[in-house]
Amino acid sequence: MGELALIEGIRSGWAAQARGVALGIGDDCAILRPPRGHEILVTTDFTLEGRHFRRDWHPAESVGHRALARGLSDLAAMGARPLAAFLSLALPAEQLATRSGRAWVERFFAGLRALAELHHVSLAGGDTAQAPGEQILADIVLVGTAPAGRALRRSTAHAGDALYVTGQLGGAAAELAAMQVRAEQARAAESKSGASSLPRSLRKGWESSPELLAAHPQMFPQPRLAVGQTLLRRRLASSAIDLSDGLSTDLAHLCQESGVGAEVNASALPIHPLAAQSSEEQALKRALNGGEDYELLFAAPSAVRVPRSIAGVRVTRIGTLLREKTILLVDSAGRRTPLKPGGWEHFAVKNSPRRS
Amino acid sequence: MGELALIEGIRSGWAAQARGVALGIGDDCAILRPPRGHEILVTTDFTLEGRHFRRDWHPAESVGHRALARGLSDLAAMGARPLAAFLSLALPAEQLATRSGRAWVERFFAGLRALAELHHVSLAGGDTAQAPGEQILADIVLVGTAPAGRALRRSTAHAGDALYVTGQLGGAAAELAAMQVRAEQARAAESKSGASSLPRSLRKGWESSPELLAAHPQMFPQPRLAVGQTLLRRRLASSAIDLSDGLSTDLAHLCQESGVGAEVNASALPIHPLAAQSSEEQALKRALNGGEDYELLFAAPSAVRVPRSIAGVRVTRIGTLLREKTILLVDSAGRRTPLKPGGWEHFAVKNSPRRS
Repeated sequence: MGELALIEGIRSGWAAQARGVALGIGDDCAILRPPRGHEILVTTDFTLEGRHFRRDWHPAESVGHRALARGLSDLAAMGARPLAAFLSLALPAEQLATRSGRAWVERFFAGLRALAELHHVSLAGGDTAQAPGEQILADIVLVGTAPAGRALRRSTAHAGDALYVTGQLGGAAAELAAMQVRAEQARAAESKSGASSLPRSLRKGWESSPELLAAHPQMFPQPRLAVGQTLLRRRLASSAIDLSDGLSTDLAHLCQESGVGAEVNASALPIHPLAAQSSEEQALKRALNGGEDYELLFAAPSAVRVPRSIAGVRVTRIGTLLREKTILLVDSAGRRTPLKPGGWEHFAVKNSPRRS
Repeated sequence: MGELALIEGIRSGWAAQARGVALGIGDDCAILRPPRGHEILVTTDFTLEGRHFRRDWHPAESVGHRALARGLSDLAAMGARPLAAFLSLALPAEQLATRSGRAWVERFFAGLRALAELHHVSLAGGDTAQAPGEQILADIVLVGTAPAGRALRRSTAHAGDALYVTGQLGGAAAELAAMQVRAEQARAAESKSGASSLPRSLRKGWESSPELLAAHPQMFPQPRLAVGQTLLRRRLASSAIDLSDGLSTDLAHLCQESGVGAEVNASALPIHPLAAQSSEEQALKRALNGGEDYELLFAAPSAVRVPRSIAGVRVTRIGTLLREKTILLVDSAGRRTPLKPGGWEHFAVKNSPRRS
């Protein structure tokens, strides 16, 4: 199986859902047709083995899902609609030489494709290469559209705005910790580390069951595209960002770009049931710093009435933006302590993969 | 130096040339404003250490230049104008910890930036990560525009069309061979392999001298954007592709996508002076299979008068497209032999880097 065979395999099956794609995989470039009066949004995200996933922790379907979810979540944060996805994929030399290696790649694409179909986005191109080392390397590019001048930004929040999050926090970090334990048990039992497989509950029809997937926030995070698009369309939000690095870090990004501070009520944070299984302190830490929840954090002017649920996703008010440029955590007794960015910064952290 | 410091370093200095970029680095997505009535073209290209470059062969400036050139050349092949570039860059853990490591990254960006400025394209976003291994990993994304329905494709050539190439062939492969010899000599002399530095002739003002760079087709290939845009605007070409993998392989792509065959006149091939220094057989091999010349290969209906030079670049007729789906090489005595794809196919080739 050479590069051309791999490309042919990737190419087939995407044509039917090519809304907005005038020319897909197979030429020097893809050609996209954005709707009139719209701007183009572009985001790129690495998915590198050992940094963003481990083959013995994450099932291959999860790796493909997560690669696409990272990009879709960036579009969601700006209220955009996806137009097309592009995937650069480098595989180690042996990957396509063994049946199990090829099966991994097929399961990776099954995961990517299932999420793509859910959001009607087509894979319109990319690149393939032999990886220089032993690790699988992917880079996903998402191109989306938004009405001109209307995309939600990080930099447009104001002091006095209320602060909201979608869904629940800390679940991705809690499930990751459980996956790590399971992988260690499997290694101890078999004295070698194999590729992770799908949880039993997901083995049948997982692709078509967002409900089942919702119980796996680390393996199958759900990018909040419909929420973001609703925030934009109904002019509910003054600013938004997605929670990829962790609330404490992503809130700091939003505050810095907008030139404001914030206070967050610890007791208001919607803790994911998986996170709530551990101690209160651990649960709070995971909700604040865990990252990878891919929920949206947004600000809304205090006069705006924000619904408790948008596009079927719960929305929770967690705090307020301040004029003073400090970020504070308020506990149930009303005590204020500085909330330092405790999430992910790539080059500052040496552990592998993130938040292990 | 953490990820944020790196991003800040990348972010600064690009704002001034942000034509078509409504929002650059710093939010979840970049926002681009394509001209009315235009389609969007997108291409992604890996630049992986050990596969596409070697630190002891390629100067860092060359690696940055080549990464961007690969994407720009894909836009050139379709007659598009660049709108913005995106770079995903993963560096090994030690890279930002040493002065020489940081200097390499700065020289990489100097090379990338010089080519970007030459073509008025801005870096509007990307991703950064710690590489999982020892190798530097980059993925470049180029977004361009072309008038709706007018982009040059691989699939639209016809039997009877004349076949042309821009510039000269085989130079990139010839210079790569010379770089390999130099690196081996340096290693033998110093008994270790260091990072390659710029050739003496380029050490002053190389950024602003396309003439000097033209003597280094492997280190500093020149994407043929002005030629591609002229072919599109003046409706000269029926089809086009860029020569990244090698004439024999890229011609096979064009023929397959267009459903035609071709005959190529060996004696008509414009051999680069660096390739012409070796034996006639070696020179022909490098012109046909060497790859990485990043010239354009295009077809034109026989009734079209194609100028001998377009946008200052020599254009040479090298053959004709045939109804019969075979690709033939015609030698000076008129003998026809099959021309097999002898260029680059990633997963089929185990050597590192390409064509060593």
